Amino acid sequence: MPSFSSDGPNRRFMLGVLAALPTLPGLLGTTVAQAQTAQAPTTPLASWNDGPAKQAILDFVKATTDRASANYVPPDDRIATFDQDGTLWVEHPLYTQAFFALDRVHEMAPHHPEWKSHEPFKAVLANDLPALAHFSEGDWAELIFATHAGMSQAAFLEIATKWLATAKHPRFKRLFTELVYQPMTEVLEYLRANQFETFIVTGGGQDFVRAYSQRVYGIPTQQVIGSSLGMKYQFKDGKAELMRQPKLFFNDNYDGKAIGIDMFIGKRPFAAFGNSTGDREMLEYTKAGSGARLSMLVLHDDAAREFAYGPAQGLPDTKVGTFTQGLYDEAKKDGWPVISMKNDWKRIFAFDTL
Amino acid sequence: MPSFSSDGPNRRFMLGVLAALPTLPGLLGTTVAQAQTAQAPTTPLASWNDGPAKQAILDFVKATTDRASANYVPPDDRIATFDQDGTLWVEHPLYTQAFFALDRVHEMAPHHPEWKSHEPFKAVLANDLPALAHFSEGDWAELIFATHAGMSQAAFLEIATKWLATAKHPRFKRLFTELVYQPMTEVLEYLRANQFETFIVTGGGQDFVRAYSQRVYGIPTQQVIGSSLGMKYQFKDGKAELMRQPKLFFNDNYDGKAIGIDMFIGKRPFAAFGNSTGDREMLEYTKAGSGARLSMLVLHDDAAREFAYGPAQGLPDTKVGTFTQGLYDEAKKDGWPVISMKNDWKRIFAFDTL
Repeated sequence: MPSFSSDGPNRRFMLGVLAALPTLPGLLGTTVAQAQTAQAPTTPLASWNDGPAKQAILDFVKATTDRASANYVPPDDRIATFDQDGTLWVEHPLYTQAFFALDRVHEMAPHHPEWKSHEPFKAVLANDLPALAHFSEGDWAELIFATHAGMSQAAFLEIATKWLATAKHPRFKRLFTELVYQPMTEVLEYLRANQFETFIVTGGGQDFVRAYSQRVYGIPTQQVIGSSLGMKYQFKDGKAELMRQPKLFFNDNYDGKAIGIDMFIGKRPFAAFGNSTGDREMLEYTKAGSGARLSMLVLHDDAAREFAYGPAQGLPDTKVGTFTQGLYDEAKKDGWPVISMKNDWKRIFAFDTL
Repeated sequence: MPSFSSDGPNRRFMLGVLAALPTLPGLLGTTVAQAQTAQAPTTPLASWNDGPAKQAILDFVKATTDRASANYVPPDDRIATFDQDGTLWVEHPLYTQAFFALDRVHEMAPHHPEWKSHEPFKAVLANDLPALAHFSEGDWAELIFATHAGMSQAAFLEIATKWLATAKHPRFKRLFTELVYQPMTEVLEYLRANQFETFIVTGGGQDFVRAYSQRVYGIPTQQVIGSSLGMKYQFKDGKAELMRQPKLFFNDNYDGKAIGIDMFIGKRPFAAFGNSTGDREMLEYTKAGSGARLSMLVLHDDAAREFAYGPAQGLPDTKVGTFTQGLYDEAKKDGWPVISMKNDWKRIFAFDTL
């Protein structure tokens, strides 16, 4: 279990994790895999190697969609939920939204001369990576509130969309939206082809993810559940707008993921995919339902093609928001198949050769 | 505007309105319209009389779905939102959920001997209707927390479903779920046939509405947005459950309706339907969007077939949660078509003769 209280007001939210920031400089020189645009797969899960992980997905879909199956699920109840960061796309060395927040600080700095002498802004403006690696939850909250609030929803969408069109990942030198795991895209498509509704359930800000979810994942905004800020309704001169407030309204992480699923969907998922302790309650909640339920974990064990972190690195269970040994043990005990990126995936990205 | 603060913690929520309780005894003797099962309409809006209200709906759908139209809307963006109580079904003399809460108090009373001497429970147990009519927001909150919390989501769903299977409306002597307005059912179906996603946006409890939304309205739980209680995640012995807490988490009323739409859907509706000041911000927010937007109000002006209340009765604008003169004036000024139940609807219920 994480070392912090899951009930207190200061628990981790949105992006308070720097999974392995000190390794950032080393990553910048890593060779990137050959770029190549993926062909649309003609068979389900084409980027998956045969093995227990792929088989678990195929078996689950057969069990829930075959009318002759004892575990048949009517289409109306076919709900599948996916964590985003580290499950659908790269989260290393920082969440994409954290890169966005840091860039926003630099961009907004001319209007905030006081930031030069005020932490955590001072460290961000000085590109002080060791300091960033030790930011507290409160530091990240301050950065988020300063960069994500104080504008309308429409204005925020425009800012996020503009950033996403040009910002690139430091290692892969590609747009962040290109760093989606092709095998997981195929899972989304395979489930949707079998009449599952696919939801993103992210600890990140839901409005940030909604800026690209349709285009990148084929998931409409109303199927994106995430953390959110308080909103204020404003109506003047016939213009109705929602203004983003510098306070957390909903923390869609840990127990918040199970609560968010119930609040937004009102049905228990039949399948859920995650990669960290932030997903634990979603996976438990899913797996505890009756009939055929599938909870799966993505293990980052491929340093050559992506990154390696989690139980392979012997991290203690107190490490926040990662695939810990404790989570690994729970997966083994409760029958959650673990996806090895190294062994189960033929390729990581759509631009990798198959 | 309502007389209470929309920012304070004591603002009206869920079902704090007794629209005209003192008239209840008089209503009990009213003749009910002849029962008859409706035929499925073969033309859109078959239960609507020709007139400006029906025409506004037809024109809106043509403008937004005709590819040659300047106001064409891609299917992904076709969102329509509906208030429930007083817009999709009867809300008089009490919200259905209020009847549920009162029945629950009677049912639970043997386990709560202290209620006999403690208000507001004492008045409920004594069937003291005049006292009920003067319950405060706090009184209703206490009744809701006592009757709607302290159990799992699954247990609450079972309790609500069981009640809905037998409880009847005092005037119509029919199940509450039969008291859906047939013309509005036709609007839901007509919009869905034109690739709109139809959402309920209710000030009532979303979990109560989700117990019957699919069956009664053809609306799945994930398209029901409403007020909700705090939830607590509980995991033991492999069982993961969400426990309902006696506190309000989200108040989906007034500004909360616009905020809830943004939080759950992330898109501004193109059409919205309401009947009270609790729907004002939803209608403003919808109508303020670009292109063809439709905000409509249902006016209860048919005492013979349903009820008559609202501006026709000269209610002042301080009256909470009803169709006030101020709302009527705003509708006229801003071009929100008003639906006269008496003049625009050939029949009110599916069991009425057409």
